[in-house]
Amino acid sequence: MKELLREYARLSVKSGVNVQKGQMVVINSPAECVELTRLIVEEAYLAGAGDVRVNFTDDIISHHKYQYQTVEKLMEFPNWMIDKYQEIVDNKAALIEISAPTPGLMKDIDPKKMQQVQIASMQKIKFFRTYQMSDECQWNIVAMPTHAWASAVFPDLSKEEAYTKLLEAILSACRVQEGKSSVEAWDAHMDTLASHNQIMNEYNFRSLHFTNSLGTDLTVGLVKDHIWAGGAEYTGKGVRFSPNIPTEEMFTMPHRLEVEGTVYSSKPLNYSGNLIKDFMLRFEKGKVVEFHAAEAEEALRSLVEFDEGSCYLGEVALVPYDSPISNSGILFLNTLFDENASCHLALGRCYPMNIQGALSMSEEELLSKGGNQSMTHVDFMFGTSDMKVVGITQEGQEIVVMENGNFVI
Amino acid sequence: MKELLREYARLSVKSGVNVQKGQMVVINSPAECVELTRLIVEEAYLAGAGDVRVNFTDDIISHHKYQYQTVEKLMEFPNWMIDKYQEIVDNKAALIEISAPTPGLMKDIDPKKMQQVQIASMQKIKFFRTYQMSDECQWNIVAMPTHAWASAVFPDLSKEEAYTKLLEAILSACRVQEGKSSVEAWDAHMDTLASHNQIMNEYNFRSLHFTNSLGTDLTVGLVKDHIWAGGAEYTGKGVRFSPNIPTEEMFTMPHRLEVEGTVYSSKPLNYSGNLIKDFMLRFEKGKVVEFHAAEAEEALRSLVEFDEGSCYLGEVALVPYDSPISNSGILFLNTLFDENASCHLALGRCYPMNIQGALSMSEEELLSKGGNQSMTHVDFMFGTSDMKVVGITQEGQEIVVMENGNFVI
Repeated sequence: MKELLREYARLSVKSGVNVQKGQMVVINSPAECVELTRLIVEEAYLAGAGDVRVNFTDDIISHHKYQYQTVEKLMEFPNWMIDKYQEIVDNKAALIEISAPTPGLMKDIDPKKMQQVQIASMQKIKFFRTYQMSDECQWNIVAMPTHAWASAVFPDLSKEEAYTKLLEAILSACRVQEGKSSVEAWDAHMDTLASHNQIMNEYNFRSLHFTNSLGTDLTVGLVKDHIWAGGAEYTGKGVRFSPNIPTEEMFTMPHRLEVEGTVYSSKPLNYSGNLIKDFMLRFEKGKVVEFHAAEAEEALRSLVEFDEGSCYLGEVALVPYDSPISNSGILFLNTLFDENASCHLALGRCYPMNIQGALSMSEEELLSKGGNQSMTHVDFMFGTSDMKVVGITQEGQEIVVMENGNFVI
Repeated sequence: MKELLREYARLSVKSGVNVQKGQMVVINSPAECVELTRLIVEEAYLAGAGDVRVNFTDDIISHHKYQYQTVEKLMEFPNWMIDKYQEIVDNKAALIEISAPTPGLMKDIDPKKMQQVQIASMQKIKFFRTYQMSDECQWNIVAMPTHAWASAVFPDLSKEEAYTKLLEAILSACRVQEGKSSVEAWDAHMDTLASHNQIMNEYNFRSLHFTNSLGTDLTVGLVKDHIWAGGAEYTGKGVRFSPNIPTEEMFTMPHRLEVEGTVYSSKPLNYSGNLIKDFMLRFEKGKVVEFHAAEAEEALRSLVEFDEGSCYLGEVALVPYDSPISNSGILFLNTLFDENASCHLALGRCYPMNIQGALSMSEEELLSKGGNQSMTHVDFMFGTSDMKVVGITQEGQEIVVMENGNFVI
């Protein structure tokens, strides 16, 4: 297992952020994932990193903070912390995040309290979010089990069995296999995704129409000059990197004001530690005008009402129902995986990479072209085995893109 | 075991730092010790802490940094980090450190490289060291096993057995027992140490003469108006706290220029990740003029030559050979424990608390009274089962303080 973990670390360093000679690398990791973090640190140095910094976090300690601290205390954001983020931007550091959120951990915390605190901190380091979202740097998210996460995914197994099974499922989804180069396997997969993007870009659809038996009947307008992306990306300087490992999705930019109809979730959404289940959203002129959830509706409300832009879409993504993650049959309770088992949408900020000429656009210009602005960006799943997706061309022609959840185009 | 760990966390929070209503608490913890850290965080909030901050570290990642980074890169100390320490001082935060160093981990790293880096960082945050050493704040060190440490202490046991055995030994040494209040047991122990200090303070010896069969023959002059301390301490504002858990020692301030003779170590010294074994030091007029070690002599050299003051003594401490830690028969390879199994000395900085009137003294005054100055402070053990300690009074009278390693006074 140690050797597979090292392969996984190498995948994050080489295909993930593709660390450049002398570059600073910043790793955010749960304290519980220290074993993988050590391997990533060493692989980063071996790949030529000049300085590797690690920030360890812990969900349970965060929960204690929310539980016991006043909102005023939680909203304090010392200047040195801003400077710490500024240093990352100034050094054009590569960012690696090890993702291992604990599903449902925050369910006893007032979502409004969490929202206030998150908005306060996001405002302080907006420059840092911009740095990451606009691909000035290479960044990568990989996952690693914690005991709490593993036991939430496999509640009937023992602590150790659940951990091992989740780790095996993660490695398999990331194409890390014994006796093979995970970097080569991953890079081949990236090439496949790139060719899919090319086909969709050539069609240049005006909108997509989604229908399935859950009741979803949604038309998503796409911005003019949109770009389908997914898989590997490139920094402004042309360095290839893979933001998400694993990833199976291709995604583009919806027009924030041209979304009409109703969408039903097909998987629970783990938002701020709350598991939102069986929810629907109804859109008019792009805006969420109605929503319901069978569980944790207040958390859904805090997302929709997070800020002015969080009630509009920022991303639409297609994933074949036959993706490896979907076929594993495991509900990972983690967006990094579950979003790759299903077509999904995101409320909140758009990705500038999904429109031509974004680099030279101001935020106002992007907004005027239909690209959504928000301080948040949260994916939710709505793909099903009977999903039908029809593309409408600029000339009004209808082309079936997906049938029964899979590409037919 | 979970309940014992919570008792241990409570001990650190209540008897250790004795956290005050609304106070900031800063915890430094190895990432591997996250389970104990979570409990300490929660107990600190329950005790009224206003804000608990955690800095997780990892020895193996530190080793990677020393292995792969240039000394110039390692010596960089960004301003935000200085500001972070300044914030702790400004808030008069209580400090908790979880100690779990890995013995011998740094043995392949050039001690000179480590020394350069340590001096550079110590110079940047000297104000912080002053804050802690002069008892402006409550601080506390407790220990927790890591797998690497446990396996070094019990190399013949399995990984899990070694971990459990070390944890049990630590809890036992700290008087944490099932069904009893660890805080009450600890506070009673502190009262006993306080009464021992009182006896030694009343004798007001001019010097101590140590002899044993290892060859030690050392006279340690004590500064005028020295104070024997050990166990609980008090901040300037009168808040009682226990810096070291466990502790069995009583200690005072040697006169930096009045140490004569030779001392032989009785236990290995784990310094900067190197295990220095079977070493001797010869003093003339307080200064180390000769030293040898059977193993890791270069590490010993880097300690003695660390700075101008590291070749003089800053602490002399008496520990009965019959202390609970000594009786456990375990060599913990960690100063926090091993120093409490044996009489010891420290090279480097003195503790201002060990002399009357220190609060109103400048560094120059303290130095002129014989109190040593240095950026380092490193304990080493020289007590044995046949140690004899004779106190010489101001009038030249000889009083036997210890015989066969135990107090007879």
